Parts: sequence; structure tokens; C-alpha cells
Amino acid sequence: MRKGLGRLCLVVAGSLLLPSAGSANDMLMKMSQDAKQWAMPTGNYANHRYSTLDQINAGNVGKLQVAWTFSTGVLRGHEGGPLIIGSTMYVHTPFPNKVFALDLDNNGRILWKYEPKQDPDTIPVMCCDTVNRGVAYGDGKIILHQADTTVVALDAKTGKVVWSAKNGDPKTGSTGTSAPMVVKDKVIIGISGGEFGVRGSVTAYSLKDGKLVWRGYSMGPDSDILVDPQKTTFMGKPVGKDSGTNTWEGDQWKIGGGATWGWYSYDPELNLIYYGSGNPSTWNPKQRPGDNRWSMTVWARDPDTGMAKWVYQMTPHDEWDFDGINEMILADIDVKGQKRKALVHFDRNGFGYTLDRVTGELLVAEKFDPVVNWATEVDMKTGRPQVVSKYSTEQNGEDVNSTGICPAALGTKDQQPAAFSPKTGLFYVPTNHVCMDYEPFRVSYTAGQPYVGATLSMYPPKGDKHMGNFIAWDAGTGKIVWSKEELFSVWSGALATAGDVVFYGTLEGYLKAVSAKDGKELYNFKTPSGIIGNVTTYEHGGKQYIAVLSGIGGWAGIGLAAGLTDPQAGLGAVGGYAALSNYTDLGGQLTVFKLPD
Amino acid sequence: MRKGLGRLCLVVAGSLLLPSAGSANDMLMKMSQDAKQWAMPTGNYANHRYSTLDQINAGNVGKLQVAWTFSTGVLRGHEGGPLIIGSTMYVHTPFPNKVFALDLDNNGRILWKYEPKQDPDTIPVMCCDTVNRGVAYGDGKIILHQADTTVVALDAKTGKVVWSAKNGDPKTGSTGTSAPMVVKDKVIIGISGGEFGVRGSVTAYSLKDGKLVWRGYSMGPDSDILVDPQKTTFMGKPVGKDSGTNTWEGDQWKIGGGATWGWYSYDPELNLIYYGSGNPSTWNPKQRPGDNRWSMTVWARDPDTGMAKWVYQMTPHDEWDFDGINEMILADIDVKGQKRKALVHFDRNGFGYTLDRVTGELLVAEKFDPVVNWATEVDMKTGRPQVVSKYSTEQNGEDVNSTGICPAALGTKDQQPAAFSPKTGLFYVPTNHVCMDYEPFRVSYTAGQPYVGATLSMYPPKGDKHMGNFIAWDAGTGKIVWSKEELFSVWSGALATAGDVVFYGTLEGYLKAVSAKDGKELYNFKTPSGIIGNVTTYEHGGKQYIAVLSGIGGWAGIGLAAGLTDPQAGLGAVGGYAALSNYTDLGGQLTVFKLPD
Repeated sequence: MRKGLGRLCLVVAGSLLLPSAGSANDMLMKMSQDAKQWAMPTGNYANHRYSTLDQINAGNVGKLQVAWTFSTGVLRGHEGGPLIIGSTMYVHTPFPNKVFALDLDNNGRILWKYEPKQDPDTIPVMCCDTVNRGVAYGDGKIILHQADTTVVALDAKTGKVVWSAKNGDPKTGSTGTSAPMVVKDKVIIGISGGEFGVRGSVTAYSLKDGKLVWRGYSMGPDSDILVDPQKTTFMGKPVGKDSGTNTWEGDQWKIGGGATWGWYSYDPELNLIYYGSGNPSTWNPKQRPGDNRWSMTVWARDPDTGMAKWVYQMTPHDEWDFDGINEMILADIDVKGQKRKALVHFDRNGFGYTLDRVTGELLVAEKFDPVVNWATEVDMKTGRPQVVSKYSTEQNGEDVNSTGICPAALGTKDQQPAAFSPKTGLFYVPTNHVCMDYEPFRVSYTAGQPYVGATLSMYPPKGDKHMGNFIAWDAGTGKIVWSKEELFSVWSGALATAGDVVFYGTLEGYLKAVSAKDGKELYNFKTPSGIIGNVTTYEHGGKQYIAVLSGIGGWAGIGLAAGLTDPQAGLGAVGGYAALSNYTDLGGQLTVFKLPD
Repeated sequence: MRKGLGRLCLVVAGSLLLPSAGSANDMLMKMSQDAKQWAMPTGNYANHRYSTLDQINAGNVGKLQVAWTFSTGVLRGHEGGPLIIGSTMYVHTPFPNKVFALDLDNNGRILWKYEPKQDPDTIPVMCCDTVNRGVAYGDGKIILHQADTTVVALDAKTGKVVWSAKNGDPKTGSTGTSAPMVVKDKVIIGISGGEFGVRGSVTAYSLKDGKLVWRGYSMGPDSDILVDPQKTTFMGKPVGKDSGTNTWEGDQWKIGGGATWGWYSYDPELNLIYYGSGNPSTWNPKQRPGDNRWSMTVWARDPDTGMAKWVYQMTPHDEWDFDGINEMILADIDVKGQKRKALVHFDRNGFGYTLDRVTGELLVAEKFDPVVNWATEVDMKTGRPQVVSKYSTEQNGEDVNSTGICPAALGTKDQQPAAFSPKTGLFYVPTNHVCMDYEPFRVSYTAGQPYVGATLSMYPPKGDKHMGNFIAWDAGTGKIVWSKEELFSVWSGALATAGDVVFYGTLEGYLKAVSAKDGKELYNFKTPSGIIGNVTTYEHGGKQYIAVLSGIGGWAGIGLAAGLTDPQAGLGAVGGYAALSNYTDLGGQLTVFKLPD
């Protein structure tokens, strides 16, 4: 019965009889358990990015070779990765957000192509390259979140538009970069624009027709943020009335940031979705006194109603742009000798958090790069990081350059998702090993204009030449198990497999395979351009394949991507990653690997 | 002594002591004989595109795999191929004509990058995509012919500009697309713009400082075209006085076309360079009565003075845009039982010509695709093709659609260069198998504006579904030895090797290896984008590599490259090659292949 599921799903997806929304969800669950496919951007609802496929394994991965390749015809940063549904691969691109359906039976022949018409004026509103993190599949539809925030459902078979919805307005600073997640009969979608003073929100649309079902903001009145003052908890206690406004001065919450452009997770048993909200706007902390709740927060919401069950704010009153949007990985693991329904999150602020995902209880918060210096530790009672005064851009004040802060604004990890192997029990984390100088300045808000208010420089930690590490993490103890240096930040998403191999890409363009056990490099291949995409695996015709998008860009690669040369441009990334131009140039290609026949 | 040459050259090239121009030529000759390198766009002066390397051979080519890849960061058509000088690979791009020096010791790490600043208004003046066919090497310099006709010499070691010269003016319709050729102390360079009424010319610049040494036009007074009325011959007879003006009406020769954007060959023993001139302007034959000499002509010139020794006009008074610029391959072969110093040329008009390259005597002229119907044969006495009235767009007249003409305007072969294997004695020819409807109309000349005067449609020959063949040709007898069908035109340059393998690329993006003996397909690999580049081979660290640029475009791919959808746009190619969009999208990548370690 189990064995035939992949095929069954494919047939149904391709039939004219659309299954009901409920069954679409069941089907998605089953499809995500079918290792032959890659049905969600995150691999599965738990965001594991793990595959049970083991044809490619630690013993033979060194023999990997390129099977076929595909150019998307778009340059700039290619984040995310393809979906594989049956014998079709769905590939997306950065702006203009093309979607290709490729025939796996025919070396990637193009079955259909969708290219939306979008106002190019959307591009300047995208803070950190024109990226898009991928499409979602559900109920025979491919869901695309365009840069201009249009959400469009395409018939997976034909590419024809089934419905479309408007998730925001680039004219007021909001853009679409995140991958949607289909849960039951809904599509869950976030929004970008924390550098333009948007008020972040998560929206659920009807998978069937695109109608808005609920929207939960990151800050604002209780009815906007969908919390119950008594039932919604933070550190085990009710959040109380007006929690989304009473840590803001006046109306500042209306332009409060807390964007929601990261990855989403879902626990079907608990019926909760999880995600993080981003930095408060502006980056000048002096301008927005208070804890700025609920920016920088882990959210657990009911996907049916949007109501929050619990929240956990990691970085109250952010002073460094330690945007909290990184993915939540759901895993049942031993924490200090006890089996816990855990949520593991590697935050931009450099702490690896383990929480109880049922209650939001804070279990572990440890630095996942020893270089992190802005806080000494997280107080496990209050959940608050203990800020080191000399690295406090608030205390140092406006127009003062706070130097030597680690990590840099793009964090010890950014959007590049980690992987979890249930087999080893370890988390495999692509990281940034970068510090910064940060000088806040007063800025005034104009809708649709940058609302940043800080000048940054980025560089490797003192004494180091490398700017990245790929690490294995024990989330039960909060310890690094092994760490592998990389010349630049590892801006690519990891993939762990039952073959005891972990894959990731580098900004120079290498796809690498390392031993899940000790991080030893087993294989590398220079793809056409820097990799900021997420590694994916699938099986087709009895063979396991590895696929990854190349295309330098994203925040780290913005200098190359946007042709910027001023070192402080790109919010400091241009100077920090200038040496990238010695290794790679713009691209936009899919490379598919296999073992020799 | 011979064995160490490659290394010796490298050291000298990289030293501060620039060798004298004379020795640069000797060095180039020797470098082109060192199979480890690929020192000229054409492989060698004879334009053989043949390598004596045989590590990769018919027995093992099926095991070929991708070694590394490189994205140029430029989309649109990538014609030409890289040079390999010592351990450095030089890669060029279409507009904006970047040049990369890549380190072969380090998976293509970028040693330097040159990107000229060019007026984007040059792009609309390029008739058939923004292509560039490659850079030349000589005397420690890399010579680039930019789209805007600037010729620039770069220090091969640093990428710094040594000198630059202006070869034309895009404002009057001339652009640069062709690869330069270094001969002795000169750089020989052609010009594009036959669709804009330029008067084609070939220019020799001083390799040392870029000073213009001589310029020979395709039409005009004897002193312009550098012919001696008595000594320069056509079909064994002196061309006579005013041969470049007396087959034109009035001053029409001044906007007469005869562009020179193809490949150049050189016979050091005879001290002659060879190339073809293009179509007369306009494409409406009624507007320019006469033979329109010396458009459509094979030229043999003295590289020191530019003086023509002989000419041979293949298509007098062109009525189909059978542009004569295709490469001249120099080979000493048996022709009808006699060893001849031959020049072999596969013309757009569908005839494969074999001439005596010493005298210009016409030896063989046979159709290299049986579908060719516009002429029955070439009269071996006069050298004139015998035109079939129903396919004569001149006879049918203006505003009349002449239908079913084979080949189409882009010819049975276009710029995609053939290869010659001295081992098999065969020529390996990438061909177009395409017919057309052609409707000439009256057009007036305005400098810098298109001066085409015909509307075209292109399609496969009646009853056929394929639009290309890759053939092996016996130039001594004028017969096809074997022919392999391809879905689309083979717009990529071929490579023949001592391993009895011939390589070429397809518009869908496949690199293919076939048996030199019988054309049997031994290997194929789907590169990121359609291939219109030329396949190259070299040896590095004891291993043979195969390299090819992908990037759909050129005339055949102009619909995809320029985003055109009107079937008659792109001079008829958009409709003819519309199905290409089912296979590939824009790209710009180098793929390097090797055998498994």
C-alpha cells in the first residue's frame, strides 16, 4: 500500500477530479513522506530537509557526477530549490519569478513556463536582492509568491492561472520573497519589507480560490496580532492585554517591522504552525524605545484560526538587525536527558534555541559560533539575552560607530535553512562567521522608501580569514559537534540524507558533500555560479538525484548581484564579500547530480 | 626540444620581456601545434578545429563527465569558445563583451575580468543577436573585438588595456562580432553590418600598438579593395580595372555590404590569409542590379600588404542573403586523384566548395544538403551557380513572396565552423536543414538604420521534421559520407580529435560526441542552455578536457535571446525556431568535461 503512494498521488494530481482540500493536506503529508518526491520547499512539515534515500551515501558520494543542467534565463540570486512532484520538477527564479515545469523523463524538457508581468519598480523595494525562496504544491496547484506580493495558483499540469491574490503593496514597501506553505485547505504566506517599515503579517489564503481567511500581524492590537491575552503565553505566562502595542512608543507599531519572510513549519498533531518574525523598524534602536513586541519572536499559531498559542521573543528591542525569521525545525529529541517535543531554531543573533514546541518553554539557548559577543548568554528564566554594553548600539547612541560586534547584521545564520537527520540526531547548520561595525542614525519614515537608519561594515572575525562554518549541532545540549571552515558564509540550505551524507553549497559555487558523522569533505563540484539555493534530493527511474540552484546573490552576494561597489552599500555586505568576485559571476542554473550508471 | 615548447611559451608569455612581433607569430604557430593549448579561436591557422589529443576517444567518450562549470553572468547567445594558454583559460561573452582569465589550476578561479563600457544603443544595431566569436592571443596580449567595434589589446597576465583602436562606427551600422586573428605582427579584423548597408572591410592593425596598417574593402575602387587589376585573378583571369565598382549601379557600392564577420585562415607558406565577404546590401536584389562584386566572395590576401592574390565570387547578385562569410579550411587533400593545396568552404548557399588555395581554381562545388534547390549546380567553367527561376527572388520581383526556397537565408551552414580531421581526411559540418519564403521589398537607406528589404519565413523542408544535420563530407569528391539528423540547426562549431571522436553542440543544449567514422552517437549531455559555441579541447595536468559555451541565441535563437514573438521577426527565424522554447532558456555558461579520474 505504502509503496504505491507516490504514483497514486501523481495520478490524482494530474487528473481533472480535484481532490477536496482536506485530502490535499493528507496527500501532501504522504507525498512529503515519499522520499522519491520533494513536495514542499522545506522537505517536510517539520522542516527537516532530510531524505531517507541512501543510494548516494558516504561510501560512494565521491563518485557523484552531473546528470543534466538547466539555465533559468535569469541572473541574480537564486535562493530556494525545486519541487519534485511525480516525474515533474518545478523550478522557480528570482524576479521576474518565472516558474518552469520540467520533464524528468526527458532531461528537463520544458513542459510549461509561467512568467508573470511585474512592475520593475518592485526591484528597488527589495532590500537584499531580488530573491524568491520557492513555490509550494497543493491540490494540483503550484503556488507562487511573486516579488510584487501577488500570490498566484497555477495548474500544476498546464501552468494556467487558477487564482491570484494580492498579499501586500510594493508601493508601501512590502514585497514577496518567501516560499508559501500549504496546510490543510490553506496557503500560509509571509511578507518582506522590514527595511521599509512595513508591519509584518502572516496570511492564510484559501487553497481553493485564494480568498483571505485570516491575517495575523507581528505587532498591533490583540485583534490584529491574533492573540488571546489570557491564553496566549510567553515564557509560560499569559501575554496580557495589548502586548503588541504596549512596548512601542505611540503609533510606532504601525511601521514596526517584524516581517515574516522565513520558512514555516507545521505540527499536524498539535495543529500548530511555527515561524519567526523579523527585526523592528528602523535599525536605529534609539528611535523606537521599548521591547518592540512581537518583533524578533517565535510564533506558534493555529493554522485554522491564526490564533497564537505561544510566543517567544528572542531579541527584545533589537539593536543589530538580528532579524528572527530563520526556520523552526521540529524534532522529538532528548534534551538534558528528557525526550521533548522540541522546536530548534538557529537565530541571526547567534544563539541556537531549543524550545518545547507544545508550550514554548525555553530549554536551551547557546551560541552556535563561539565568536558571538553582543550578549554573554540568554537568561533562562526571563528568556532575555544579556547584552554586553560595549556592543550595544542603543547605549553607544546615534551617530556612534559601535565596532567589533559579532555576528554581523546578517547573523550567525540567515535564511539559509539547516537540516536535521533523525538518524544521527544532529542538526547541520550553514553559518556566517562575520562581525560588523554598526552606526545608527536618525531616519524619517516615508512610505515605500528605505527606513534603515544604520551604516554597516562587515568583515571576518579578528584573526580569522574565513567567513563561514558548516557545523553539526547537538540541540539537546547546545553544543557544536563538529565544524568545517568555509571561505565565505554558507548561504545555501543544507540537505541531510540516510546515506550519512550532508550536502550544502558555497558562495564560490561549490556543491559539497560531507560526512554526517564528522564533517569530512567527501565530494565537491564547482557549479556555474555561487550557490545560495537549497540542496534537494529525489528519486526517478530507480536512481537518486541531487539538485541545486546556482546564482550568486542574496544579501551576502548583493554586491555582485546588483553591481554595487561602494563597500558600505548593500547594508555593509558589498565590502564584506568583495572577494567573491574572484571566484564567481552572476548565474541562474540548476545542476542535477547522480552516481555513474 | 618540441616537448617543452608549451611550457616555454607560457613562461615567455607571462614574463615582462615581451617577445618581438615576429617571434610572437612563430610562437603562435608553435602554440597552435601544442595540443595542450588552444591558442587561436580556430584551433590553428588552417581552421582545422582538430586536436591530436586522444586520451578521450571513441572507446571511452561515453564515460565523459562534467569537471567544472562557470557562469559568465551574461545571457543571450554565446558564440565562439575559450582560448587556453598555458594554465589560463580566456572566456569571452556577448555584449557587454566581458573577458575572464580563469585559473585552470583552481577550477576556474577568476584571475582577472575585463568589462568594457559600451553604449547599449549598440545592441539594436546588431542584426542577429549580441554575439561575439571570441578573443585572439598574440605576443602576451588578448585581443578583443567589442560590439561597438573597439579593438582592445589586454595584457594577458593582468587584463590591463595595452592599446585600443576603433574599427568602425555603430552609428553608421557597423558592429564587431568576429574573432580577430593574429598573423605575424598584425591583428586581422573584420566587421559586421551587412543588414545596415555598411561597406565591409578587413583591417590589419599593428599587434604592438594598434596602429592601422592596411584596410581592404569588399567593394569600391581598386585602391580601396586592394586588388591589382592585372595580377589579382578570378577564375584564373585578371579581375581587370574597377572590378569593385563596375558591377554596381552608380554609387551603390558605397553601401554595398560584403561584411567580413566570419573566420579567418592563414597559410604561412603561401603567405596568404583567406576569408569570405558577405551579402550585398540590401536584401532586395531588384534595388542593386549587377553582380555586386566583391560581395559573396572568397578572398586570398597578402597579410603584409593586404593585396588580394585571387578572389572567387560564389553567389553573384545575391537574391537570398546567402552571405559568404563562412570559414575557409585549408587542407592538402586528394581531389579527383590529385593531391591539392585545397581550400574547403561550406557556403550559406548550400554548396560545398573545394578550391586550389594557391590559384583560386575551382575544383569541386557540390550541394552538401540534397534539399538545396535555388540552383541546380555550379558551372565549373564560369564558377556561377545555375539559378532556378522559380526560386529567383529577383525574377519573381518585389513584393512577391517566393516560396519553398532551400536553404533559408541562414544557409545550409552559417558561422558555425566545421572541423577537419587529417586522420580521416573528412570534414565534419554542422548544418541547417531549413527552407524559406522570401519577399523582397523596396527600402531606402538611412545611416545606422536597418537596410534589409525582405520579409522571410523559415521552416523545415517539406516532409521533414528535423531542421539540422551533422554531416561528414568528402571535399575531394563533394559527397556526404554520413549524415546525422538533429531536431534543430546545428549552430555550434565542431571539434574533431585524434581519438576518432567529433564533438558538437545542439540548440536544445546537448553536447554530443559522435564517431568520426560513421556518425554514431557515443555521448550526449544536456548543458544549461542551447549551444551555439564552438567545442574546444585542451590538456591540463595530464588530463584531456573538452570545453563548450552554452547560451542560446545567434540568428537561429534570436527569438529566445531577444524576447521576440512575432514569427516574422528576427528575419524569419523567430517563427522557424519557435519550438526551441520547449527545450531551453537563456544562459551563459562554460561546461568543462573530462573522463573520470
